[in-house]
Amino acid sequence: MTDDAKQIIGFFKGLQDEICSGLESLDQGNYFREDLWDRDGGGGGRTRIFTGDIIEKGGVNFSAVHGPMPEKIAAALKVPANDFLATGVSIVLHPANPFVPIIHMNVRYFETSVGKWWFGGGIDLTPHYVIADDARYFHQALKDTCDKHDLSYYPAYKRWADDYFFIKHRDETRGIGGIFFDRLSSDDTMDRMDVFSFVQDVGQTFLPTYLELANRNRHKAYTEKHQLWQRLRRGRYVEFNLVWDRGTKFGLDTNGRTESILMSLPPMASWEYDHQVITGSPEAYTLQQLVKDIDWVSHKTK
Amino acid sequence: MTDDAKQIIGFFKGLQDEICSGLESLDQGNYFREDLWDRDGGGGGRTRIFTGDIIEKGGVNFSAVHGPMPEKIAAALKVPANDFLATGVSIVLHPANPFVPIIHMNVRYFETSVGKWWFGGGIDLTPHYVIADDARYFHQALKDTCDKHDLSYYPAYKRWADDYFFIKHRDETRGIGGIFFDRLSSDDTMDRMDVFSFVQDVGQTFLPTYLELANRNRHKAYTEKHQLWQRLRRGRYVEFNLVWDRGTKFGLDTNGRTESILMSLPPMASWEYDHQVITGSPEAYTLQQLVKDIDWVSHKTK
Repeated sequence: MTDDAKQIIGFFKGLQDEICSGLESLDQGNYFREDLWDRDGGGGGRTRIFTGDIIEKGGVNFSAVHGPMPEKIAAALKVPANDFLATGVSIVLHPANPFVPIIHMNVRYFETSVGKWWFGGGIDLTPHYVIADDARYFHQALKDTCDKHDLSYYPAYKRWADDYFFIKHRDETRGIGGIFFDRLSSDDTMDRMDVFSFVQDVGQTFLPTYLELANRNRHKAYTEKHQLWQRLRRGRYVEFNLVWDRGTKFGLDTNGRTESILMSLPPMASWEYDHQVITGSPEAYTLQQLVKDIDWVSHKTK
Repeated sequence: MTDDAKQIIGFFKGLQDEICSGLESLDQGNYFREDLWDRDGGGGGRTRIFTGDIIEKGGVNFSAVHGPMPEKIAAALKVPANDFLATGVSIVLHPANPFVPIIHMNVRYFETSVGKWWFGGGIDLTPHYVIADDARYFHQALKDTCDKHDLSYYPAYKRWADDYFFIKHRDETRGIGGIFFDRLSSDDTMDRMDVFSFVQDVGQTFLPTYLELANRNRHKAYTEKHQLWQRLRRGRYVEFNLVWDRGTKFGLDTNGRTESILMSLPPMASWEYDHQVITGSPEAYTLQQLVKDIDWVSHKTK
């Protein structure tokens, strides 16, 4: 393991701690449950699960696994099987109030003993109800973080998120996107510590941005009708994660820790045959926004 | 399309009608909603969806699609791209009472214009609570149907179901299995009309068997605790269907009709991190039965 890797692992652990504390401060009186686990073959993780009042179900997971690379992993990653290290932080939060959005973040680092390395990650938002001001705020925060490093990042990684978080069989995006990037490495003539610096900033964008979005919406009144819609949207979240998400598939295929991987699934989800929304309703508005290439940063509210 | 195919299509349509009537008689005052759909390229289907008191959500779908075979389908099926016909009936029923099991049936026929043909199908049961007498009754009914045709069918197709309906990332079967078979064809030195006769009997085993299981259990009292367990088991059903089921994957990958394919998903499902059951409880007993190779037919109740 490189010295850089040790530093990266240290940062990811600290990030997990910081985000967990922040969410406990938001959702007062509720605390993360922590499960420490070891991986046969090397390394392990700290799975932290939250069941609260504002966050109905959430996971903020850290892991750092290493050792000889299993053949299945080498094949999936298309790299020669050497010793490897994979470390990262993964977060999914399912809020109780349907007007508070679901959020997902992942930051990850990978290296092999023959000198290959890369970073990946991103943050994306899945509102049950799209609220244009919130979407603009969210994308502006990501753009600000990206722009500090390279003006080309936000447009490129925003597009990547639109393409990645896409539910093909529904022809709709999972939510309003965000940023997504993968395998940022020396192959892209990037310097490891420069990319790390960017990934650190992405990681640190998560907490203040989500706290703002949660605080804007968590006191809004809702009814059973809104909760049904929330469950239906959570159903789409399940569809994306189980059918299309490469990270989930990779984890389940390579004997990852199932309970940690599937912490992303909602506490309750519904499926109705051919559910129809009422023209002009907030639900209809939401569906109209679940398309690629909306320029949220310069979006004008209707 | 062969004359045999026309006969098979006719049988499948009649089977759908018969099963729908039978379920409407069970769950009185509730009726199937029918959506007729056409496929670009040829053929179409009759999707029938039920929302009732005993069956909370169910689908009994017929389809017969034909035309030039899309490349993606040819690749997935590993056959040369010729004109094809695919027809079948697919059923999934999610009952309201947690003591009534989820059931799935599929019978299907496929042929190409160059003379290739095969049948596939099966029936399997996913009890939220495994009840040994019901499991024995169910497997005995399937064995009786199989034995009328060939004594080798039940053991072979029972094993196939155990292997197919397996949630690998949970190391548990989806339910108590049943029978499953695929690509029964002239390659297995089988006669088309003989296999058809078997498939007809399988199709006709469905209704009386499920009515018996529903009537045995539908009046049992249950509480919220049982409903939570039901939702968790439905969550596993979702995991199997979206992660592992080749039929679902095939449908979603080849631009099948999403709403018809995903009628299999439950009305409501839950995920809890690392849910634990109480030793000695009916929930713990159920989990113990979700393993391959239980000989239900000769099973002694404890």
